[in-house]
Amino acid sequence: MGIGSAQYSHTLENPFTAGERYLMISRSLRDDGVRDFSIVPIVDINRYAVWVSHVVSFVPTFQVVYSNNPLTRRLFSEAGFEVRASPMFNREIYSGTEIRRRMMAGESWNDLVPKAVVEVVHEIDGEERMRDLSSHSPSGRSEDDPVEGSGEEP
Amino acid sequence: MGIGSAQYSHTLENPFTAGERYLMISRSLRDDGVRDFSIVPIVDINRYAVWVSHVVSFVPTFQVVYSNNPLTRRLFSEAGFEVRASPMFNREIYSGTEIRRRMMAGESWNDLVPKAVVEVVHEIDGEERMRDLSSHSPSGRSEDDPVEGSGEEP
Amino acid sequence: MGIGSAQYSHTLENPFTAGERYLMISRSLRDDGVRDFSIVPIVDINRYAVWVSHVVSFVPTFQVVYSNNPLTRRLFSEAGFEVRASPMFNREIYSGTEIRRRMMAGESWNDLVPKAVVEVVHEIDGEERMRDLSSHSPSGRSEDDPVEGSGEEP
Amino acid sequence: MGIGSAQYSHTLENPFTAGERYLMISRSLRDDGVRDFSIVPIVDINRYAVWVSHVVSFVPTFQVVYSNNPLTRRLFSEAGFEVRASPMFNREIYSGTEIRRRMMAGESWNDLVPKAVVEVVHEIDGEERMRDLSSHSPSGRSEDDPVEGSGEEP
Amino acid sequence: MGIGSAQYSHTLENPFTAGERYLMISRSLRDDGVRDFSIVPIVDINRYAVWVSHVVSFVPTFQVVYSNNPLTRRLFSEAGFEVRASPMFNREIYSGTEIRRRMMAGESWNDLVPKAVVEVVHEIDGEERMRDLSSHSPSGRSEDDPVEGSGEEP
Amino acid sequence: MGIGSAQYSHTLENPFTAGERYLMISRSLRDDGVRDFSIVPIVDINRYAVWVSHVVSFVPTFQVVYSNNPLTRRLFSEAGFEVRASPMFNREIYSGTEIRRRMMAGESWNDLVPKAVVEVVHEIDGEERMRDLSSHSPSGRSEDDPVEGSGEEP
Repeated sequence: MGIGSAQYSHTLENPFTAGERYLMISRSLRDDGVRDFSIVPIVDINRYAVWVSHVVSFVPTFQVVYSNNPLTRRLFSEAGFEVRASPMFNREIYSGTEIRRRMMAGESWNDLVPKAVVEVVHEIDGEERMRDLSSHSPSGRSEDDPVEGSGEEP
Repeated sequence: MGIGSAQYSHTLENPFTAGERYLMISRSLRDDGVRDFSIVPIVDINRYAVWVSHVVSFVPTFQVVYSNNPLTRRLFSEAGFEVRASPMFNREIYSGTEIRRRMMAGESWNDLVPKAVVEVVHEIDGEERMRDLSSHSPSGRSEDDPVEGSGEEP
Repeated sequence: MGIGSAQYSHTLENPFTAGERYLMISRSLRDDGVRDFSIVPIVDINRYAVWVSHVVSFVPTFQVVYSNNPLTRRLFSEAGFEVRASPMFNREIYSGTEIRRRMMAGESWNDLVPKAVVEVVHEIDGEERMRDLSSHSPSGRSEDDPVEGSGEEP
Repeated sequence: MGIGSAQYSHTLENPFTAGERYLMISRSLRDDGVRDFSIVPIVDINRYAVWVSHVVSFVPTFQVVYSNNPLTRRLFSEAGFEVRASPMFNREIYSGTEIRRRMMAGESWNDLVPKAVVEVVHEIDGEERMRDLSSHSPSGRSEDDPVEGSGEEP
Repeated sequence: MGIGSAQYSHTLENPFTAGERYLMISRSLRDDGVRDFSIVPIVDINRYAVWVSHVVSFVPTFQVVYSNNPLTRRLFSEAGFEVRASPMFNREIYSGTEIRRRMMAGESWNDLVPKAVVEVVHEIDGEERMRDLSSHSPSGRSEDDPVEGSGEEP
Repeated sequence: MGIGSAQYSHTLENPFTAGERYLMISRSLRDDGVRDFSIVPIVDINRYAVWVSHVVSFVPTFQVVYSNNPLTRRLFSEAGFEVRASPMFNREIYSGTEIRRRMMAGESWNDLVPKAVVEVVHEIDGEERMRDLSSHSPSGRSEDDPVEGSGEEP
């Protein structure tokens, strides 16, 4: 199982580090009695023409790809892999976007994820991190300054 | 002649690899009887202060730059190059954006490009690739998941 | 004092190089009689989990961080630094966004920045650069072409 | 457990991809009855000042570092981690350098590694790959040409 | 035809930019009456597991690879390409290493390369560049200083 | 004044971070009564064709380059800058290589550098760091293991 965009953390889209996400997945699987799995963080490379080779080089051998993402499906198909759809349930609610929205809004989200995920988020103080990331200081962003940079970094 | 953003492919903006674009251009020029040309793929470096040096180091010597892009014109002018405008004809229709839109919509686009481009797109199954890239699975994006990344990569 | 996004220049958000921004800051401080300061350009690395280490490695030792940016505050707090707010005055007007807007619009902006900044901008012909960056050629962008790249680079 | 230099493969020092190494380790551990482990490929970043943060962000939380490498020990100590030595047995023979040397020389190496490693190397045709990497064409390297590059890439 | 290590120049191994090398090759081929060729600069990526995809994405479609380099041959074979040896003549003399050595030593090298290469080297003042790169100031390297960097950059 | 190879630290060649080196230089200059100076850390980019633009973009405007390094001199000359030699005194002893050698060997080095450098090295416990970096565990490097990476990272 790949953890995508592994280089990101502390953003609204990817609030948790790859290591924290690794822990959420592995504990959840172990709680369910699953033992034989491989989890691999995959950093983005932003070049789709080499992306399949990139993934292949980081993960143990595999034959079938499960994905519902059109681009992922297209790229692995072009490379000759068998691609299957993964089943999904009630995607309006069981979605990362919805869960992250609830975390930031202080609404209940515990029921939507495995118990191990709740534990990990609490251990790393994840709710407070998400609220901090979404907060805005009253007088604007500090880097909004004519002589300092105002790019994507904090 | 430079092929910009050469590292990209399989996106809605840059659906084709640099090699595929190279083939489209070189075949079209040869069909028109042009023989003495140089085509050079140029990867982005996202640092405009060194961008001119970057381009200069990858292409054979040149004296004049043809471009209608204000930033390109500005950067080459600051570096002391002569910059000229390139003539354009009916830009509403003969535009990459319009042609890619037609490809995805299944509308006719063959008349807007040289015959060699039509051939290459067919050889690489380009229309199907574009439709795949623009399609969306009914139940949402697969990476929209609290424990997987949800960044820019597929 | 860090100069963020130091790799950027010639964009509407970061029109000036890190070296030009360095000069604006150092001259302004010297005009005010400040002598003991350190200015350090910091390039983005787009990975918040290592961002604090990245900054720490480029600047002389420090104990306290002054910032009003929630993410900056969060990251340095997680790393154990003391974080304080920096005072701000009339942020509607004394803001980089507003000053850059005025430069492009040809409105008066000299009163909003230290005298040394006005001098540096004039020396590097900064107003003309900003107007060039914001201008658009009448018939569209030159890279909007089916066989050339259309990414972020000029 | 981290897999270092995860970006490398097909070199004499790192002949196997991170995914292949992942498989060797996970199968060996499972054969020994170990179930609760985490394996994480770590790509090099070549900046020691941010290296600890880099590792920390990719792996699940940990308190103790086991390493005999002086630099690894130094970096984690500076960052406040507890560092312990890992026991080693007969390092003249149970060493990667020795095992890779034997593979290339066609000497026996199976007894020096877990059975699962032997299996994986056979499945991926690893011995032939190593012999190919170490072979030299009789008439020299093909890139040794005045008008082609002669850098590190093949 | 690929120009490898395209990012390098001004080193003893790769004294010329990719653009200068492009010009040497294209002029030589045109002088010999060859018209239908493609030259593509390829920057190193230092990750052999994705190197074939990288090359494939930058060059027009091809079926056969000509190379005498064991690693190049191995990588393209693993990826399913047909690989053939390229003929070589008197490699002791017609070698880039020998020609660069002669340039630096001020010995005769013109007879070993096509006439177009001699012209390009003269146009870009290449002999003087090579002698400068190989010279050493009498009192040592300036960056050999306890408080300045002493890495690979000049 | 540029601090080269600013991304490195904790190596035998570049034991100190760019920030630590910044502090050594700035304190030494202030001790000598120098006030109007600019210190700029410059990270390597390993592409000499764009290196001058890279440096120019990070430092305040300058007209003259002082360097005894042949490559630095060549690159700035090609770019049209005036290049002058910097005076050097007794390079056998006042050399970074010699001073780092003495630090590791536990020999006296304090007399060879400004007093401020001695202070900074003591504050950051620099001698112990250097001895740690140069030490070797008795039984070899820990990463020398068939299933772990054995690249350049610790």
